[in-house]
Amino acid sequence: MRIVVTNCNTTQEMTEEIVRGARAAAGPGTTVAGLTPAWGPESAEGWLDSYLSAAAVIDLLRTYDGPPYDAVVMAGFGEHGREGVRELVDVPVVDITEAAAHLACLLGRRYGVVTTLERSCGQIEDSLELAGVGRNCAAVVGTGLSVLDLGDGDRERTEEAFLAAAEQAGRAGAEVLVLGCAGMTGLERVVGEKLGLPVVDGVAAAVKLAESLVALGLTTSRAGSYAKPVPKRRVWGRGTA
Amino acid sequence: MRIVVTNCNTTQEMTEEIVRGARAAAGPGTTVAGLTPAWGPESAEGWLDSYLSAAAVIDLLRTYDGPPYDAVVMAGFGEHGREGVRELVDVPVVDITEAAAHLACLLGRRYGVVTTLERSCGQIEDSLELAGVGRNCAAVVGTGLSVLDLGDGDRERTEEAFLAAAEQAGRAGAEVLVLGCAGMTGLERVVGEKLGLPVVDGVAAAVKLAESLVALGLTTSRAGSYAKPVPKRRVWGRGTA
Amino acid sequence: MRIVVTNCNTTQEMTEEIVRGARAAAGPGTTVAGLTPAWGPESAEGWLDSYLSAAAVIDLLRTYDGPPYDAVVMAGFGEHGREGVRELVDVPVVDITEAAAHLACLLGRRYGVVTTLERSCGQIEDSLELAGVGRNCAAVVGTGLSVLDLGDGDRERTEEAFLAAAEQAGRAGAEVLVLGCAGMTGLERVVGEKLGLPVVDGVAAAVKLAESLVALGLTTSRAGSYAKPVPKRRVWGRGTA
Amino acid sequence: MRIVVTNCNTTQEMTEEIVRGARAAAGPGTTVAGLTPAWGPESAEGWLDSYLSAAAVIDLLRTYDGPPYDAVVMAGFGEHGREGVRELVDVPVVDITEAAAHLACLLGRRYGVVTTLERSCGQIEDSLELAGVGRNCAAVVGTGLSVLDLGDGDRERTEEAFLAAAEQAGRAGAEVLVLGCAGMTGLERVVGEKLGLPVVDGVAAAVKLAESLVALGLTTSRAGSYAKPVPKRRVWGRGTA
Amino acid sequence: MRIVVTNCNTTQEMTEEIVRGARAAAGPGTTVAGLTPAWGPESAEGWLDSYLSAAAVIDLLRTYDGPPYDAVVMAGFGEHGREGVRELVDVPVVDITEAAAHLACLLGRRYGVVTTLERSCGQIEDSLELAGVGRNCAAVVGTGLSVLDLGDGDRERTEEAFLAAAEQAGRAGAEVLVLGCAGMTGLERVVGEKLGLPVVDGVAAAVKLAESLVALGLTTSRAGSYAKPVPKRRVWGRGTA
Amino acid sequence: MRIVVTNCNTTQEMTEEIVRGARAAAGPGTTVAGLTPAWGPESAEGWLDSYLSAAAVIDLLRTYDGPPYDAVVMAGFGEHGREGVRELVDVPVVDITEAAAHLACLLGRRYGVVTTLERSCGQIEDSLELAGVGRNCAAVVGTGLSVLDLGDGDRERTEEAFLAAAEQAGRAGAEVLVLGCAGMTGLERVVGEKLGLPVVDGVAAAVKLAESLVALGLTTSRAGSYAKPVPKRRVWGRGTA
Repeated sequence: MRIVVTNCNTTQEMTEEIVRGARAAAGPGTTVAGLTPAWGPESAEGWLDSYLSAAAVIDLLRTYDGPPYDAVVMAGFGEHGREGVRELVDVPVVDITEAAAHLACLLGRRYGVVTTLERSCGQIEDSLELAGVGRNCAAVVGTGLSVLDLGDGDRERTEEAFLAAAEQAGRAGAEVLVLGCAGMTGLERVVGEKLGLPVVDGVAAAVKLAESLVALGLTTSRAGSYAKPVPKRRVWGRGTA
Repeated sequence: MRIVVTNCNTTQEMTEEIVRGARAAAGPGTTVAGLTPAWGPESAEGWLDSYLSAAAVIDLLRTYDGPPYDAVVMAGFGEHGREGVRELVDVPVVDITEAAAHLACLLGRRYGVVTTLERSCGQIEDSLELAGVGRNCAAVVGTGLSVLDLGDGDRERTEEAFLAAAEQAGRAGAEVLVLGCAGMTGLERVVGEKLGLPVVDGVAAAVKLAESLVALGLTTSRAGSYAKPVPKRRVWGRGTA
Repeated sequence: MRIVVTNCNTTQEMTEEIVRGARAAAGPGTTVAGLTPAWGPESAEGWLDSYLSAAAVIDLLRTYDGPPYDAVVMAGFGEHGREGVRELVDVPVVDITEAAAHLACLLGRRYGVVTTLERSCGQIEDSLELAGVGRNCAAVVGTGLSVLDLGDGDRERTEEAFLAAAEQAGRAGAEVLVLGCAGMTGLERVVGEKLGLPVVDGVAAAVKLAESLVALGLTTSRAGSYAKPVPKRRVWGRGTA
Repeated sequence: MRIVVTNCNTTQEMTEEIVRGARAAAGPGTTVAGLTPAWGPESAEGWLDSYLSAAAVIDLLRTYDGPPYDAVVMAGFGEHGREGVRELVDVPVVDITEAAAHLACLLGRRYGVVTTLERSCGQIEDSLELAGVGRNCAAVVGTGLSVLDLGDGDRERTEEAFLAAAEQAGRAGAEVLVLGCAGMTGLERVVGEKLGLPVVDGVAAAVKLAESLVALGLTTSRAGSYAKPVPKRRVWGRGTA
Repeated sequence: MRIVVTNCNTTQEMTEEIVRGARAAAGPGTTVAGLTPAWGPESAEGWLDSYLSAAAVIDLLRTYDGPPYDAVVMAGFGEHGREGVRELVDVPVVDITEAAAHLACLLGRRYGVVTTLERSCGQIEDSLELAGVGRNCAAVVGTGLSVLDLGDGDRERTEEAFLAAAEQAGRAGAEVLVLGCAGMTGLERVVGEKLGLPVVDGVAAAVKLAESLVALGLTTSRAGSYAKPVPKRRVWGRGTA
Repeated sequence: MRIVVTNCNTTQEMTEEIVRGARAAAGPGTTVAGLTPAWGPESAEGWLDSYLSAAAVIDLLRTYDGPPYDAVVMAGFGEHGREGVRELVDVPVVDITEAAAHLACLLGRRYGVVTTLERSCGQIEDSLELAGVGRNCAAVVGTGLSVLDLGDGDRERTEEAFLAAAEQAGRAGAEVLVLGCAGMTGLERVVGEKLGLPVVDGVAAAVKLAESLVALGLTTSRAGSYAKPVPKRRVWGRGTA
């Protein structure tokens, strides 16, 4: 089976890192291909970035002309767009935000999310709520690190910030943690051991859920919300920076 | 005071109709200017259209170089984007979806929304929920008419469809109705009289709320969720159809 | 247009202060008249006062024989009575509690209320919940000051107490603040500047919402909850202290 | 033990009927005394009546000078005032609305309320919600009969209307029914048998809960919400019809 | 009337202590008989114990062959099984968890529960939620003491732990406290005095609610959820430790 | 990897059917072993059966002495016990109720459950709610068929009943369906085609989720709710029918 993983931003290095995480999680028969949007923000932080990203990712898949794929994994924690992609493609679509939460619910009575900047917390809460998995979320906590900070190699600072935020989530009742940024992939084992808690990475979770849906022959319902887009005139951006 | 009203789609006629509605609602000292996105869908129906529209409307305001304005009214019922625009501009931003609901809450214990296609109902419910005004919404009901159907001049068919949907909303407990599409503006008096119920038009409601915020010197908080976008590299679309 | 503003208590000075706030918010064509109940509590703090106040305010409007008015603003933060007044009069009725919350929702993702005594917090929470705007309320926090303390001129103490409570609301997630007492009107600019947050005054908010509804020709629905009171024998109090 | 039962309206016959129901439910050592407000509405239907009734009932207990009592039962289904009475008196206070719901929750997974006019349904829903027992309420259904209709002796019409409304509640999931008006007391056995469902009368339920609290030495908490009213100037009505 | 009180564990001493508490609460005409399960856990702490206990208590009542009884009180705070017992027996069934909450709701706007180990808190929250009385629960707080610790006679340590946990519940808004373990019965007066708050013991509360239902001739509805168990082959355990 | 699937009842044929379904869903490297409780009900319908089943399934795993396994799938739709099993075993535990809902949430905005008898609907709603996936459940609908009816070979009747119930769920907003009984496994393709909707079978869903958790090295958190059971004396049933 072939899964395409869409990065939510235009930073190629991040796509590669996400793909590494996705491949590590993928089963033997699964091929993972990473896609980077041709336009959009270099990192998605806040609503403006998120809506720009959503349109760019939809456009990315709309204009995709590579080999056929069996599922889409959308790698942008808390970012918008999943319902639009569900309308567009005929294969299952799994967003890493909801994916992490679905698995986390199976591992403890309440879970918490540790993310980058405080400004992203509200967006993540909304995303979980609409995905139908907000009830057992005890807290979404920011580390104060930006998405690009995560990539600068200062692993120690990232770990420390994560552990401090994780402690706060724990006091709020979290028994399981979720990595609240695609760029945190890889951190789950280290911090999981230090914390003695299961830590779920959304990219890995989404790959397994996508594989599961494909294996079971399940895909998005066309009844009601996610009907195919009506043919009409649409212009996809102005193409200027 | 000067209010810019952004249409959520690229159809110039619809912008004009919305502006007519907005001007009818505006107070004596208020100037209304309509803006049509340079790109996006010709009408917004469903999530794919909505995310495309959100990015296009943000881009529209980002690249706006007309006279200064005091507030933004976003005219796309149930469409995405309001939080992104709040990050972008320094003046108050009012979305017609939430605006209609805010006023409706003051007029009855429960309100209902009558919209175009069934596929839009879920999106509207989500929009109201996140705006914090979902609790007293008794029902969101579709008429089966598309956005473009509304503009084709068959007013009788529109009215009939609206009245049938309104009756359904009433059975669910709605005591006030909301016009669930910017293209329905103007319908409120006719159907209000036939139904004996207050009918709220979101465009008019948003104009009054925008005027209110401006008059009181209030604008979006920069604490937490709606901080200014961080400067970074962003590309706004590919510019092809 | 003419708006009557009803004080919830019998203290004439407070009515005057409220009217000053209302006039400052009113548009050019709006006349504001303050009404003080002939009976009731000298200040409303707690449920007993609130129910007494509700009956007295309804009686005040029932027996009103001044010039006609276009809307009612009810100035008692968290106090009861608004649904009863909606049944009674044919013009729009806006309560300052809900009004402040409606505008606050447009300015940030979560808002907080700073009020007088702790004992009032629960009543305010209930009032917001039933008005349909409780979802995005992050916290209602008391300052420990009574309604009458607010009027004693010690502005510094009031400001300090407000800022301390505001900080607590901020920690709970509030991005916008609401003045939780009609007697706090005027405080919004000072504390807004110190906090760097929008601060909404309910009296001003209610005046703008009342003006909005009148301008749009909207008034309370008679379908369902707020039907006119059935004619019957009613006795309005015993007239003794 | 001595329980005072306060009627919410000024109709003496209704007080007597309520007292009959209360006495039928009271245990061997319990004395029941009925109190009729000196002012207020002759029947409480809708919010205006309800707030007038709340003030009048509080005044009734405030000026009561009979023998001491051990608990208060407030007999007005869905009517306001209970929190104010809790502030005022030192003994337990039980409102028949919440009382019926508390017992109903013990008898089935979901309960329904059958009441008088449709206009009262919303008020009852609010009352149950704030009392903390709204979650398991499947429906509140009106019979179309006014409070005074109930007393006119046409038992057959009342029964028929009740059974039709009960059927509707059953379709919504109710497994237990609540009589949603103090004036329905006595109906529970007849309709219970016809329906094969438990039917809870609020007056009887409140008497048993009041007896329970007294027997256990429990009374209203003074911490937080229900602190004693602060001494201040209060005027209780104008004394004119 | 005769009430059987079922202990949720096999510890006879605890049954006796519970029966003492129940008898202290029972009215003059009420006989209380304690029943200890023939199998199950020696104390119930956590879900595994709770499900084992639920089956054992159901079996206890299924095989009971003593004198007839009028109601069942299930004494296991937060433990499972009440719905199964409701299916089985024809008399009213009251669980001490819900019973305490029902009475607590009548005594303050929010209540809190103080229980044994932290691990039990979630189970209690779930139990209150499903019973329909979770809304007004401000907090469930653990003392760190196990069920068996409570019985070891170190009353001082228990009191101290309880008071510390109670303070935490108070900060979360609790105005009334609930003893969150059948083994705490007797503690309510001492800590109630020290705290100046009403403290509800679930065993006593359940006895009064059971007496109330019996006195009113009310019992579990057979419509819907709690229909009689269908006759079929069932085997009740393997009988080995 | 080796998954044990526990039937919730003692009917060996049903275990075999479930195992067939589980094997059809399992990936190439997965071995599935079915376990039938040594005691319990022959089919689980209603709360009494469910609690008996919960204890029996926990006992089954407690006394299991076969080859080691990597995950547990609990096959009893809406049945109790999952949290107890999570305390007991060190490997991931997935209940088919929650599993089906988790996957269904990925396929449409709202899902519905079609189950056996009406009496099971409430139990399933509770199970989904506590698992944290109740929000997007539009309806749980009964077919009127018992668990044992499903096995009697009258496939046509089952299909018809399922389709009628599915239509009802659709009217309530369900865009995806869940088979609400382990005994319905196999029905998903036939009815999915007739309905044009995705239909999720809980057994298959749980197998894929269990495989996912094992592959990612994730298992139940020991922090808070699902700590290991404390060693103590426990007796597992009386061993008589």
